[in-house]
Amino acid sequence: MSIIDSLKWRYATKRMNSQVVPSEKIDTLLEAIQLSASGFGLQPYKIFVIDNPELKAQIQPIAYGQPQVTEASHLLVFAAWNEITQEKIDAFIQLVANTRNAPLEALKDYKNAIVGSMLNLPKEIQANWADRQVYLAMGTALVAAAELKIDTTPMEGFAPAKLDELLGLTAQGLHSVLMLTVGYRDEAADYMTGAAKVRYPKNELIIKL
Amino acid sequence: MSIIDSLKWRYATKRMNSQVVPSEKIDTLLEAIQLSASGFGLQPYKIFVIDNPELKAQIQPIAYGQPQVTEASHLLVFAAWNEITQEKIDAFIQLVANTRNAPLEALKDYKNAIVGSMLNLPKEIQANWADRQVYLAMGTALVAAAELKIDTTPMEGFAPAKLDELLGLTAQGLHSVLMLTVGYRDEAADYMTGAAKVRYPKNELIIKL
Repeated sequence: MSIIDSLKWRYATKRMNSQVVPSEKIDTLLEAIQLSASGFGLQPYKIFVIDNPELKAQIQPIAYGQPQVTEASHLLVFAAWNEITQEKIDAFIQLVANTRNAPLEALKDYKNAIVGSMLNLPKEIQANWADRQVYLAMGTALVAAAELKIDTTPMEGFAPAKLDELLGLTAQGLHSVLMLTVGYRDEAADYMTGAAKVRYPKNELIIKL
Repeated sequence: MSIIDSLKWRYATKRMNSQVVPSEKIDTLLEAIQLSASGFGLQPYKIFVIDNPELKAQIQPIAYGQPQVTEASHLLVFAAWNEITQEKIDAFIQLVANTRNAPLEALKDYKNAIVGSMLNLPKEIQANWADRQVYLAMGTALVAAAELKIDTTPMEGFAPAKLDELLGLTAQGLHSVLMLTVGYRDEAADYMTGAAKVRYPKNELIIKL
């Protein structure tokens, strides 16, 4: 299926049918997220993957009772770093050195670019930048899932502080930003199945200069 | 090519070869961006498409001289709304009504959900939310371009106030958030062509609960 057909096929699924997504498809989706672009390649986040029914049930009220949370096969929580530290930058540059078999000296400019643009920012701006990278990863995830013909619901609508507490994210220097339910649409129950996709006309959204 | 192969193929291209990307491919990329998911489906942004060499040359210093800006076939500027107003929400709900042939009355809850979560926020929080939707659209764009075998460079590194002034964005209630150069990699000149992709190991980035 072409990328355009995949994007037309997908929608934010409101009801799922509890069918399990095969683990190979989940792994491919997770690999796509791992391969997502990010500022400096820093990927300032972690992805938590939940298929345990009890844990999904505990999260459901935190997401205001949305039925997909428990009807989904898997629930992904995208959690961003609370701050960008020298230690994290050092670890990342070491990973670059190891992966590319490059001396640290050759990565000095790269490292200085990250340090220079990040370390002097207030923590909340660092966290906000990290959050934006999560949205970029979410964009990647939604397209990848559509290509794999798995349904998804990206969610901003939940109480992040409660989710952070439940999953113990604060102690890990993380905060939840987005959730993604992954499963299969329940065509009978979902009033949005088959609804025409609403988008601004091209000539409003896209301006050729 | 599978989505994973596409994602492995793509990278933030540092040098492009000035070859023109066929207009059908650009149009497909723009359609993918139009089809991107966004919070409430509100798509609080516009995309400016630039292929005029003089304008690219004017933008290059604003992007700190990065060579891809002029070596790219097309330059996209992603500009977010400065605020989420009642008027914009009304216009969006009218678009939903027209697209789905639904009475406005049937969309009352949908409209109230957007109004309730958006209108009382300070302007800068509204703008920040809009910015995040731009990152989601960028995630969509990067995957779509990779599937189309077009190279891209997503850019945070430019002076947004200067770009806003050059393009007259403030008067349109917009501010620039991200740029994307679109073209073809210059394999000889780009030191990043063929460099191993650096990603955190799966067991660090992705935690199965």
